[in-house]
Amino acid sequence: MAYDLPLTGVTILDVSRVLSGPYCTFLLAQLGARVIKVELPETGDDSRQFGPLINGVSGYFASLNRGKESIGLDLKADADREIFEALLASADVLVENFRPQVMDRLGYSWQVLHARYPRLIYGSISGFGKQNVDNSEPAYDIIIQALSGIMSVTGKGKGDFNRVGVSIADLSSGLFLAIGILASLHKLQTSGQGEIIDIAMLDSVLSLMEYPVMRYSTSGLSPGPIGTYRPAIPPPFGLFKTRSEVIVIAAGNDRLFQKLGDALPLDHSFMERYRDPEVRKDSETALTLEIETVLLQRDAPQWIAILKSHGIPCAVVNDVAAAVSLPTVKNGRLLHRPEAESDFPFFLVSSPIRFPLDDQVRDPGQPPGLDEHREKILATITAAQHSS
Amino acid sequence: MAYDLPLTGVTILDVSRVLSGPYCTFLLAQLGARVIKVELPETGDDSRQFGPLINGVSGYFASLNRGKESIGLDLKADADREIFEALLASADVLVENFRPQVMDRLGYSWQVLHARYPRLIYGSISGFGKQNVDNSEPAYDIIIQALSGIMSVTGKGKGDFNRVGVSIADLSSGLFLAIGILASLHKLQTSGQGEIIDIAMLDSVLSLMEYPVMRYSTSGLSPGPIGTYRPAIPPPFGLFKTRSEVIVIAAGNDRLFQKLGDALPLDHSFMERYRDPEVRKDSETALTLEIETVLLQRDAPQWIAILKSHGIPCAVVNDVAAAVSLPTVKNGRLLHRPEAESDFPFFLVSSPIRFPLDDQVRDPGQPPGLDEHREKILATITAAQHSS
Repeated sequence: MAYDLPLTGVTILDVSRVLSGPYCTFLLAQLGARVIKVELPETGDDSRQFGPLINGVSGYFASLNRGKESIGLDLKADADREIFEALLASADVLVENFRPQVMDRLGYSWQVLHARYPRLIYGSISGFGKQNVDNSEPAYDIIIQALSGIMSVTGKGKGDFNRVGVSIADLSSGLFLAIGILASLHKLQTSGQGEIIDIAMLDSVLSLMEYPVMRYSTSGLSPGPIGTYRPAIPPPFGLFKTRSEVIVIAAGNDRLFQKLGDALPLDHSFMERYRDPEVRKDSETALTLEIETVLLQRDAPQWIAILKSHGIPCAVVNDVAAAVSLPTVKNGRLLHRPEAESDFPFFLVSSPIRFPLDDQVRDPGQPPGLDEHREKILATITAAQHSS
Repeated sequence: MAYDLPLTGVTILDVSRVLSGPYCTFLLAQLGARVIKVELPETGDDSRQFGPLINGVSGYFASLNRGKESIGLDLKADADREIFEALLASADVLVENFRPQVMDRLGYSWQVLHARYPRLIYGSISGFGKQNVDNSEPAYDIIIQALSGIMSVTGKGKGDFNRVGVSIADLSSGLFLAIGILASLHKLQTSGQGEIIDIAMLDSVLSLMEYPVMRYSTSGLSPGPIGTYRPAIPPPFGLFKTRSEVIVIAAGNDRLFQKLGDALPLDHSFMERYRDPEVRKDSETALTLEIETVLLQRDAPQWIAILKSHGIPCAVVNDVAAAVSLPTVKNGRLLHRPEAESDFPFFLVSSPIRFPLDDQVRDPGQPPGLDEHREKILATITAAQHSS
C-alpha cells in the first residue's frame, strides 16, 4: 500500500522570506503539506539573489524552497490582496516572519484574520516576539546569537567567543514554529478554532541553552565555553590533535580512561598520576598535552581504528566533504541529488524526519520559479469558490 | 474563556533518558500532553545523578523533566512488563532513545507493538537511525558534532574547530522527533493507524547544516568556519573588540557601511579605500583591525548606544548572566522561577512556543521524584480497564 505523507491535505500559505519561515515550511512540505509561497512580484524572496547562482537559481533559495509552489503577489495592491484573501479562505496555516508591525500595517493582523478566517492558524517568527511590541530591532541571526549568550558558551576557553557555524537562531525558531503549528492543528480538530503562535528567535536559542541557563541559575556564575565547563564529566573528553586531523575522544569515566591507557598505550606512571577523576578534572590542560604527545605519532584514521578496537568512543572531526561522504549519509536518503538536467543539479539536504513505513525514495521537488504556479494556484481558488 | 493547551488529552509514554528524548517530551508536556516517564526502579533516568544536586535534585534532570509523571518499571521483569503494556494500551505515543537494538531485545519492537496497539505512534531517536542497523556505535553529542562537520564550520578561521556550546545533536533530534510525532498525530485522525518515526542525530545536525552542505555541493570545497566563508555578505559583519566586551556589528551592505563611517567616525581616506564591497571582502582582516583601533577607545555599552542611534544593527556578545538579564527575557515568560520552598528553587527555561491567546502564566511543574506518580498512574490503568 502506498504510504501517504502525514500532512497530505494541509495547505500552508507562506509569506515568509530568507531562512526561519522558509526552513519551517520546507520541513512541513517534506511531510506532505502543500506550501504556497507568496512572493514579491518583481524580486521574490530576497534569498533568490543570494549566491551562488547556478543557471540563475540561488543555491541558498534552492536549499530551503524545494517542493513549494510560488505566486507573485503585491500585498499592497488591491487586486493582489483579493487573491491573497481568497487563498487565506482555503488555507489551514499562514506563516510569516516580518518585523512585528508589518502584517498589522498590511491589514492582516491576527485579530483581523481570525475574525474572517476562524479556522486559520497564524504562525509568526520575529526576533523578540510579536507580542513584544517594544522591541522591533533588526534580528539578524548573528545579533540573536550574540544577545542570547550562545556565542559565549561556544569556544575553547574563557573569552573565546564563536558564532555557531549555522544560523541556529533562524533554524531553531523555524523548528519551534513547526511544532507550534502542528500542535495547533491537533487542537483545531476539536476546537474548530485556529490560533496564533508567536515565536521569538531569542527565546528559541535560549531554549537550546537550557543547560547553560541552569548552570548559571544554580551557581550565579556564567558558564564559559563548554570546553572549560563540564563539571559532570572528567577528561579526557573533547578534541585532541593527531599527526593529521583533529579527533574527538570521549573517555569520560574511569573504565574508558583505563581502556585508553591500554589503547595508546599510556605508561604506568601517567595512569597512576591521573587515576583519580578529580585530578583529571583539575589538570585537563596538562593531561591533554601528554595524551597528544602520543597521538601526534600517528594519523587520525589509524588512531580511530585503534581506539574503536578498544571500545573507546571517538570520531574524526570531519569537514563537510568528509561528513557527506560517510557511508550512512551517502547511502541514506538525507541527501537528494536531482536529475542532471535540473536547473540546480546539486545534492541538498532533505528532511531528517524519517517514517520507516515509507519505502519510497522521495524527491523533495524543485525550487519554484518566481510566480511559477500562478495558474495552478488561481485554479484552486476558482474550484474552491465553485464548491462553496 | 480559559485557554486549553493544544495537546491536552494526549498521553505520551516516555522511556527515554538523559537529553534528546526528554527534551522532546518536555516541550510536548509544556504544550499540554501528559508525559508518563518510565524509569529504572532503583536509579531512574541516568541524568538524576548529574550535578549540580540541590536538595538531592539534579539541575540537569530538573531542566528537562518538569511537568512529567514518573513510574519506576523494570522492563525485564514480568510484573512490570504487564504494567508497561497496560500503559501502552492507553498511550498515544511512545518515545525511546535507546541504542537501535534495545527495544527489539525487550520484545518491544515496532512490529510487535504495532500489531498489538495499532494506533500507537512510536518515536525513536538514535545516533544513526534505527533503520541503520549496521551502525550501533555510541552516539554522544560530541561524537555526532564531530562526524557531522558542524564543528568544522564553527570557529574563527581555517582549522579552528569548536564544539557548539550546547548539545545540538541531542536537542535538534528532540525537536525533529516532536515534529514527526505531531505530524503523525495529525495523520492518525484519518488513518486510524500509528506509525514509527526514526530520527537519527547525525541526520538532524546535517539538516541544520543545509547551508554548508549546499556550499560544498556547489563548489566541491568544504566551507571553513562561517567567519571566513560568507561570500554573500561583505564585511564589516561579525565580532569586534571594544575597550570592554566584544560586540557584533552587522553592517553588511554599502548603506550600513556608510552609516558606520559616520557613527564611529571613520576618516575619509578609510571610507574611500573600502568603498567597494569587493575590496572589503578581500581585506576583511585589515578592515577589522582598523575599525577595532577606533572601537578600542570606548566601552561596549557606549558603542552600542552610538551605533543604534545611527541605525546600525549591533549587539554586545552577552554571557549567560547578561542574556537572562535582558529586559525582554527577564520580564517575559520564558524563565520560570519556582516557589522558594520548592526542592529546586532556581529559574529554568520553559517552552519558547508561545500562544498569545493563552494569558495565564504557566508553571512548568516540578521535576518528578523517581516513581512519584505510581499510584496515580496505576489508577489510570484500572480506570481504563473498567471503562473498556
